[in-house]
Amino acid sequence: MLIRRLAVIGVGLIGGSLARALRNAGEVGEIIGCGRNRDNLERGVELGVIDGFNQDIGAAVSGADAVFLGIPLGAMGAAFRALRGCIAEDTLITDGGSAKGSVVADCRSAFGFLPPGFVPGHPIAGTERSGVEASFAELYQKRRVILTPTEATSDEALDKVERMWRACGAEVTRMSIEHHDEVLAATSHLPHMLAYSLVDALAQMKENDEIFRYAAGGFRDFTRIASSNPVMWRDICVANRAALGAAMDVYIAAMKDLAETIRQGDGERLLEVFSRAKAARDRYIDGALDSPE
Amino acid sequence: MLIRRLAVIGVGLIGGSLARALRNAGEVGEIIGCGRNRDNLERGVELGVIDGFNQDIGAAVSGADAVFLGIPLGAMGAAFRALRGCIAEDTLITDGGSAKGSVVADCRSAFGFLPPGFVPGHPIAGTERSGVEASFAELYQKRRVILTPTEATSDEALDKVERMWRACGAEVTRMSIEHHDEVLAATSHLPHMLAYSLVDALAQMKENDEIFRYAAGGFRDFTRIASSNPVMWRDICVANRAALGAAMDVYIAAMKDLAETIRQGDGERLLEVFSRAKAARDRYIDGALDSPE
Repeated sequence: MLIRRLAVIGVGLIGGSLARALRNAGEVGEIIGCGRNRDNLERGVELGVIDGFNQDIGAAVSGADAVFLGIPLGAMGAAFRALRGCIAEDTLITDGGSAKGSVVADCRSAFGFLPPGFVPGHPIAGTERSGVEASFAELYQKRRVILTPTEATSDEALDKVERMWRACGAEVTRMSIEHHDEVLAATSHLPHMLAYSLVDALAQMKENDEIFRYAAGGFRDFTRIASSNPVMWRDICVANRAALGAAMDVYIAAMKDLAETIRQGDGERLLEVFSRAKAARDRYIDGALDSPE
Repeated sequence: MLIRRLAVIGVGLIGGSLARALRNAGEVGEIIGCGRNRDNLERGVELGVIDGFNQDIGAAVSGADAVFLGIPLGAMGAAFRALRGCIAEDTLITDGGSAKGSVVADCRSAFGFLPPGFVPGHPIAGTERSGVEASFAELYQKRRVILTPTEATSDEALDKVERMWRACGAEVTRMSIEHHDEVLAATSHLPHMLAYSLVDALAQMKENDEIFRYAAGGFRDFTRIASSNPVMWRDICVANRAALGAAMDVYIAAMKDLAETIRQGDGERLLEVFSRAKAARDRYIDGALDSPE
């Protein structure tokens, strides 16, 4: 058994699914939940996702050999501060945050140093639902999990977190913190910004009722991600603002260039851009890389 | 019977589906096809979509009381020039082009005036497939068709085209040419530009293999429209460049503003934008307006 006693801080879709998967795999002994919403924690016990809970983080992690932070990025700083002094030196700490630089900075500033047991992680998985009710053991099957060890992370801790995610069926890769944040800014955070700002721009147009009524073709697909949790995305934007800001600048420059090409009616160049994009999309998305969410 | 003899120029998804739907409704006598691809026309006859064909437009429209142009926007000018002198003064002419200003300009410049029988139209329907094989009689069921009569369009012609689309199961509305082009620029053309330029930007990044591998969440949905036909979209961009250029400017300004808000880490303002967008998206898209493509 990998983990004797696991503390899950934030028993939602991400934390709850990890608990279920580890339990199914027989890789965890006892699971203690912690979170702000007591009803959710009680439901977690009823569902057998957690064995018990304590709303005080210090008490919840007492005696745990591993702590998982499945909470919004904006709550990480306070959680790390609450952990301080309540865990053993070699306790494993890992998380599921969508940006990694900010989580590492929050950890360092809470502890005054980076604990060797801290392994920042990011499972690339999720649904539009949230809460322990939405969690399921198969969420991580064949999904990618990116681990971004700090300079202080011990080999032992890294290895254990890797095995933990593999036990859940995930494919684990390692990346530097900076590189993770750049890749995710481009492939996830930027598309969300495009969808949010498109819908918001249309909603603010004068005849927006009519505009949405005539929303054509792939508009529904295109804007689905604008229905994501606004609080979570606020946190992601603030946490990853440097990399996301840079990705947005690149994108804005590309859009300006495209607008100019359109205004000039340069059909040859437009055909080139659209054909290249279609080829890339068809190759990467519908082809070999069809599995990950 | 609404139409005795219909000439369909361009027997693809749009023209073929119109032919099938009118035939099913018993509102058309004979259907003559015309197009560049002889195999496609022969297949159209085999499938019973058209009764016969002639690759010469002048011959195909001879004796027709209605002509439908189901061809790319870039081919409209040449088609109107070929029609000139081959149709009666009161022959109905309508089309399925996604931009209307350019089609009207092409018609005016080919004829030297706007024929009273000309009713510019735009069925908001389509799939990712093309050619007569992809056509089906139900394509227009409960879809919106926008008609944009010119100042010369006769009431009789407008009424007949309206009845033609209703016979196909569509909901018909009227709009000015300029307004149509603005609404479609915002709701269809702009989203396609965002998707194309996002995929193209990512494809040109240094480690693009890795970037696509980690493409997260709604990325597949979000970029599906970047797999659309590049030639068709080149034509749409060139045809609607004024309205689309203006919509892109508005969008680029909104993106710049959002990038600045992110860089400042202004969480309160981000939450406001994302919440407003989510509310608009949920209200308009998943609610009452769920039927149209």
